[in-house]
Amino acid sequence: MGLDRRTLLGGASAAAATTLVNGTGRAARPKGQIRIATEEAFSTREHMRAMKALVDSRPEVTRFDYKLYRLITADLDADTPKRLLDLEKIRLAEMDEYGVTMHLLSLTSPGVQLLAPDVAVGVARSTNDELAEVIARNPGRFAGLATIAPQNPAAAAKEIERAKNKLKLNGVIINSHTNNEYLDDKKYWPILEAAEALDMPIYIHPRSPSDQMRLAMEDYNMGSAFWGYGMDTSTHFVRLMASGAFDRFPALTVVLGHMGEAVHFWIWRLDYMSAPGVQRGESPMKLLPSEYIRRNLRITTSGQENPAALKYSMDVLGPWNVMWAIDYPYQGTASAVQFMDNAPITQPERDAIYWQNAARVFNIKL
Amino acid sequence: MGLDRRTLLGGASAAAATTLVNGTGRAARPKGQIRIATEEAFSTREHMRAMKALVDSRPEVTRFDYKLYRLITADLDADTPKRLLDLEKIRLAEMDEYGVTMHLLSLTSPGVQLLAPDVAVGVARSTNDELAEVIARNPGRFAGLATIAPQNPAAAAKEIERAKNKLKLNGVIINSHTNNEYLDDKKYWPILEAAEALDMPIYIHPRSPSDQMRLAMEDYNMGSAFWGYGMDTSTHFVRLMASGAFDRFPALTVVLGHMGEAVHFWIWRLDYMSAPGVQRGESPMKLLPSEYIRRNLRITTSGQENPAALKYSMDVLGPWNVMWAIDYPYQGTASAVQFMDNAPITQPERDAIYWQNAARVFNIKL
Repeated sequence: MGLDRRTLLGGASAAAATTLVNGTGRAARPKGQIRIATEEAFSTREHMRAMKALVDSRPEVTRFDYKLYRLITADLDADTPKRLLDLEKIRLAEMDEYGVTMHLLSLTSPGVQLLAPDVAVGVARSTNDELAEVIARNPGRFAGLATIAPQNPAAAAKEIERAKNKLKLNGVIINSHTNNEYLDDKKYWPILEAAEALDMPIYIHPRSPSDQMRLAMEDYNMGSAFWGYGMDTSTHFVRLMASGAFDRFPALTVVLGHMGEAVHFWIWRLDYMSAPGVQRGESPMKLLPSEYIRRNLRITTSGQENPAALKYSMDVLGPWNVMWAIDYPYQGTASAVQFMDNAPITQPERDAIYWQNAARVFNIKL
Repeated sequence: MGLDRRTLLGGASAAAATTLVNGTGRAARPKGQIRIATEEAFSTREHMRAMKALVDSRPEVTRFDYKLYRLITADLDADTPKRLLDLEKIRLAEMDEYGVTMHLLSLTSPGVQLLAPDVAVGVARSTNDELAEVIARNPGRFAGLATIAPQNPAAAAKEIERAKNKLKLNGVIINSHTNNEYLDDKKYWPILEAAEALDMPIYIHPRSPSDQMRLAMEDYNMGSAFWGYGMDTSTHFVRLMASGAFDRFPALTVVLGHMGEAVHFWIWRLDYMSAPGVQRGESPMKLLPSEYIRRNLRITTSGQENPAALKYSMDVLGPWNVMWAIDYPYQGTASAVQFMDNAPITQPERDAIYWQNAARVFNIKL
């Protein structure tokens, strides 16, 4: 599936445009609306085998992370696992159909974070190798976030360096808590240090809520993406912020999906409630939450195709800090494209959110 | 502090206006901007004594509910307890100073919900009696939400009836969970039944997160109003909705403060994630979350003086479902009035949010 087969639909007009290849062999900027989707999941056979072994060995566990894997490893030919494992056939065809220029790929949640540390470190490395190969085979169509095993912070920091310098990946994905621990725990700060030093944004993706909060969400399927994912992930970000991590790592960029997991909807109250402590020097935070939120947080639209929430986010964070995402294959490409094509925003804003912000934040060369 | 001393500031112009008294002895609609504040806390000496006895008997407990009470019962002359206990001096003077027409009063969180059931039932009754007397002494200046003891659901349902029919109160306040149980538990449904039948809105106010989620928020003071209050209260509402309670009680009105505790920021995702189950008839919910949110939920602006969040809420819920609040005495009257006077909305919207919606939702006669 080479460059010459690529079709890029032009904005809302959906007119087909042909990609040009310039003298360097790199695709010239394609005509029409460029679209970089920033929270797009994949898996590998090795990852699925490791997860299947894990869920088979612990059938008593019914948490959503496991439910997901029991489901998708039961029949690799079912739709979702097939789409996760595929990168260059079904996926590229669907991208072409809807004019999606690029997927920023990430290993599907919960990544390797449930695996035994040694296994996790190995699966992370080979996943990143596979990812880099796919990206190299399809210039201009894929970028990728590195998988790491926070279970081994030193190895994870090294893998971030390898992912940046050797594999040319674009950031890191961490699926919320690891063994019920969040990134504010200083044992994980070597990961933050590496990510900051190497300009690798950390995308904190949801998974099942930690043991510390899950019992409030056990009924009515609420531990799922319906509710619990957002509660856990937003709490994770606020813990990180409240710990003072963004003072220690001021250039660290954290990305939250699902329209910022609603963290910034609380921005005024977060400031109001912490201002006295910050002003008296009694808080681990040196700045107000709104200052970290605007300096260190970037968000994506994954799974929240709500124009009012988009507008709110643009108003509060600036349009240059919001990025488009589909959440493929869990949510539909058609719907995500329609949402952004039709959002009541200006064309410069649409370009920023559709691709320019992602190119800047994740160091993506088109 | 009679009607003749009342000064009502007129809108952004802040021109003083005199209240007229019509032939019936009731204050005619005052001139200028009417302002009904809908989440305004008070306490009584009996309530403080009961809470002091509780926290003194359990000094090992350091949860925020207790911290609050240890603080405010230590010195009743300190600013916050003084303002909670006062209704007709400091409070009315501050209302006059800023042109606040009316406080919708509610017993400060956590109400009587930590007390032994028999004590709680008694304190609730006498609190409501005191409240009704204060309202009667100050026509046009106060309305009130009834305190109930969910610990005894049958007594609570009876108290709602007494509060409506005998005391003419305007709704009910429940401070989130009671002994770590939420209102989706069917043992509490007699309360919902009475509230629906009597057209008494239930204001679900925050308190410290339940044991089921608090461990995720024990560090960095996060169990407080900084973060945990909102997580617990929003989860409470979603549990209630997910349980099907709004199918059993379709005319029940629930009010959430703090700009809806961010529940409606999730509206698109709540729908997306529950739609398959609802459509297949496999969910306890017969409708989509957005349908309950727009039919059964009203929100207030307490503690979130953010114009972008106000605009978002008006867009998603309709301006007629958003009500103004100060959160007196925990937050400032000046700031809350300035926020709403200057919000970039139309004057009909400002009137709706400042008082007309509250008058309708809480059956308040001015």
